Amino acid sequence: MTKDGGRQDKKAQQYGVTPQSTDFNDWYNEVVKKADLADNSPVAGAMVVRPYGSALWENIVRWLDTRFKATGHESLIFPTLIPMGFITKEADHVEGFAPELFTVSKIGTEELAEPYVMRPTSETIIGHMWAGWLNSYRDLPFLHYQWGSVFRAELRTKAFLRTSEFFWHEGHTAHADEQEARAEVRQQLDLYHEFCRDVLALPVVRGEKTASERFAGAVATYSIEGMMRDGKALQSGTSHYLGQNFSRAFDVKFQTREQKEEYAHTTSWAISSRIIGAIIMTHGDDFGLIMPPRIAPIQVVVIPVGRKDNFDQMVEEGERLAAELRAQGLRVKVDKRDGVTNGFKYNDWELKGVPVRIELGPRDLEAGVVVVKNRHSDEKETLGRAEAVAGMAARLDGIHDWLLARATDFMLSHTLTADDYGTFRQAIEDGNWVRAHHCGQPECEKAIKDDTKATARNVPLDDAEFFAEKDSGPCVRCGGPGAYDKRVMFGRQY
Amino acid sequence: MTKDGGRQDKKAQQYGVTPQSTDFNDWYNEVVKKADLADNSPVAGAMVVRPYGSALWENIVRWLDTRFKATGHESLIFPTLIPMGFITKEADHVEGFAPELFTVSKIGTEELAEPYVMRPTSETIIGHMWAGWLNSYRDLPFLHYQWGSVFRAELRTKAFLRTSEFFWHEGHTAHADEQEARAEVRQQLDLYHEFCRDVLALPVVRGEKTASERFAGAVATYSIEGMMRDGKALQSGTSHYLGQNFSRAFDVKFQTREQKEEYAHTTSWAISSRIIGAIIMTHGDDFGLIMPPRIAPIQVVVIPVGRKDNFDQMVEEGERLAAELRAQGLRVKVDKRDGVTNGFKYNDWELKGVPVRIELGPRDLEAGVVVVKNRHSDEKETLGRAEAVAGMAARLDGIHDWLLARATDFMLSHTLTADDYGTFRQAIEDGNWVRAHHCGQPECEKAIKDDTKATARNVPLDDAEFFAEKDSGPCVRCGGPGAYDKRVMFGRQY
Repeated sequence: MTKDGGRQDKKAQQYGVTPQSTDFNDWYNEVVKKADLADNSPVAGAMVVRPYGSALWENIVRWLDTRFKATGHESLIFPTLIPMGFITKEADHVEGFAPELFTVSKIGTEELAEPYVMRPTSETIIGHMWAGWLNSYRDLPFLHYQWGSVFRAELRTKAFLRTSEFFWHEGHTAHADEQEARAEVRQQLDLYHEFCRDVLALPVVRGEKTASERFAGAVATYSIEGMMRDGKALQSGTSHYLGQNFSRAFDVKFQTREQKEEYAHTTSWAISSRIIGAIIMTHGDDFGLIMPPRIAPIQVVVIPVGRKDNFDQMVEEGERLAAELRAQGLRVKVDKRDGVTNGFKYNDWELKGVPVRIELGPRDLEAGVVVVKNRHSDEKETLGRAEAVAGMAARLDGIHDWLLARATDFMLSHTLTADDYGTFRQAIEDGNWVRAHHCGQPECEKAIKDDTKATARNVPLDDAEFFAEKDSGPCVRCGGPGAYDKRVMFGRQY
Repeated sequence: MTKDGGRQDKKAQQYGVTPQSTDFNDWYNEVVKKADLADNSPVAGAMVVRPYGSALWENIVRWLDTRFKATGHESLIFPTLIPMGFITKEADHVEGFAPELFTVSKIGTEELAEPYVMRPTSETIIGHMWAGWLNSYRDLPFLHYQWGSVFRAELRTKAFLRTSEFFWHEGHTAHADEQEARAEVRQQLDLYHEFCRDVLALPVVRGEKTASERFAGAVATYSIEGMMRDGKALQSGTSHYLGQNFSRAFDVKFQTREQKEEYAHTTSWAISSRIIGAIIMTHGDDFGLIMPPRIAPIQVVVIPVGRKDNFDQMVEEGERLAAELRAQGLRVKVDKRDGVTNGFKYNDWELKGVPVRIELGPRDLEAGVVVVKNRHSDEKETLGRAEAVAGMAARLDGIHDWLLARATDFMLSHTLTADDYGTFRQAIEDGNWVRAHHCGQPECEKAIKDDTKATARNVPLDDAEFFAEKDSGPCVRCGGPGAYDKRVMFGRQY
């Protein structure tokens, strides 16, 4: 095993990014741009997603979409615009979204008497449509979702994390009773958890939001929360039980089996393009991105290492190797660029986080070997060509496990418990999550937030993978009686 | 073979639609709604696409997307909004789109000094981004596309055909020279032609638009035109050579191999959700839709025909049959609804245009047979169960061929030639396309349009499948010299 010379390449240095420890924010912005994930746009608060970022998003969409369909959900396409009057129908909803709305007040040359808003979320217009489609309990459940953009004004924007336009699916379902609706809410939350853990290698905490952190108009909001490498939390997906709030506002009612009239129980749930931010900030390091292998746009990059007189031959051999890997269903790229050094290529693909690199040179070819390097490791391995090909799927699984374990260790070692407010404050200040008892009063949560910038991320579920132990005690800040049967997870957040 | 009793079913009559010959427009609107393709929305000019319509659109997206990627195109995601100032940079472009724009003048509580528009198409913002990404000829070509919604005000709206918000891909490419750009334009036009003919069973005429019908800002616009069953034309896809018009407006330039500065040659191309309108109006009949089998969301519907005491068993047998068909990669639905008659089900799936129906009853089961009916035929066939399963893929291909042949016959028999204006007017009035010589003067084209409502659809290409014969003669209206080496295709249009 040899050290990776490419990292010392001069040209590559120009390609480098600010170390995470120097400035995590700069690191993030530089990685997004230099790895060709996204670029700033001339539209305030909106980004342009470039091909590498778009390919990542497409993989995310495909995995989730397949699973939604497998559990009987159907896609629909609702308008991007919503009549302003709809937003104001559900009282909490308008309070939550009014400050963020994009208003369309002119179409062609016509000034509109009632303006439209660009959807911040679609509960209202979907409720309106459901009212027309729903007659009997036989029509239920409605298991609907759509993929698309939503629009919420953001003052300080950051690619993927906070953009005025972002991309998501929004799931919307309607059920005959509360029990079935709550089961749906939980099923989707669990799906998100599975997706994060088993596909993205992201450990996340499943829990219920406190009242202050609920979705505008929900009876109960559940979230998955992940920890970024600066210790902040990122809410990575949400699932809401909306009770009959939107049904009452939009008259979504049906005749029950017993011939009574009843309002439907509805849910909504979403994962957005923020999840790309979570991937970047959970797995990335000072060399750039590390793409979790099961979602990576490119899983293996093959670098033909030749000189002028044999470069074409090496490219050909590289393509042959790539074809064998592709035959296993792997996503493989051969870097055929000339005019850039091998070191430049190594660093470029490390920056882009491709999980495995294979170098193939004339002497390797002769010896029947290839040089293999995992993105997260400093070491190169020289392997028999056939062995490298045959072991690639297992290698990628190993990288997945390594990433998940590293992220889990990081999260656990940066999550403390506190029973007094001094310890709490300091632990937050030091960049940790803190598990603490809380009285559940919104004013007390607000006081903590104003003081420490930390918010209640969620209260872990009984069967959450992390932090689920039952426990009780007085509120860490005000000393009032604890409101939950567990410690609440607090942290600063994106 | 027996006649289809279902069509006489009383309950089904309530489900019927206005015959095409009575009112084609009513027929269309009723089919769209009753087949659950789309519904009206509370947003002026916008529709809601329901699950059956969305599944059709997803199949269209998947086929095209795979082909775009196979020829090296990369997807990106650009913002939905465009600064108003961008639209005005290309003179023809603003003239074309200004009357149709959706204006956003307020975000949150902030009134914008410069408003945004919701994209009517994205040449301008893409040009702006390209200017930042393009340096050298080595960076070219850019082969980009995005899927999304666009927004153009429509006064008289009609689901899929004319909606203020519609869905499409827009392809945008930039090249180092005109020849390569024109080859791209042609490649994508040919792909659209292949998609229409070989997947949607739609015969279309490939040709170049006259100057009056060009895309706003294009040097040359090519289209595929299909004939609907009322004799009108539907422009089903377009591909534009934009020359250096947008490059100059947005400063998209690069250093050539010879170290000179040069503007890129750009193209754009699109198929939109209108294509669903083309499918409906080319293949549908008085019983409803006929879905072309290769794109149909459901290719085969299995109807278990049982009574109370054996319905569950028939459903089970139906699922078994469906599983065997699905194992061939076919999209199959088993209609398990109880509480509706078999006749109702037959009519419901005929309305929805499912290409093949299989009925499975207890006596069929005993005899080892099933009853098979093609959507477009009145006849039922009783076939051995194994034979029906084994022959299903070939049956679907046969239905594709039948649909394409029927549509081609219809188009050819409703396309006349005219060498004098009286014949021309009458042929248009009778609901035909007319092939005629034309002087190429925009004023003369406008006079024809004002008089007959017919426009120049396109001038067929030399290797178009239809109407490509070279021919010359004086203008059918003004007698001036013919401007093209072929007859121009005129018709009324959607």
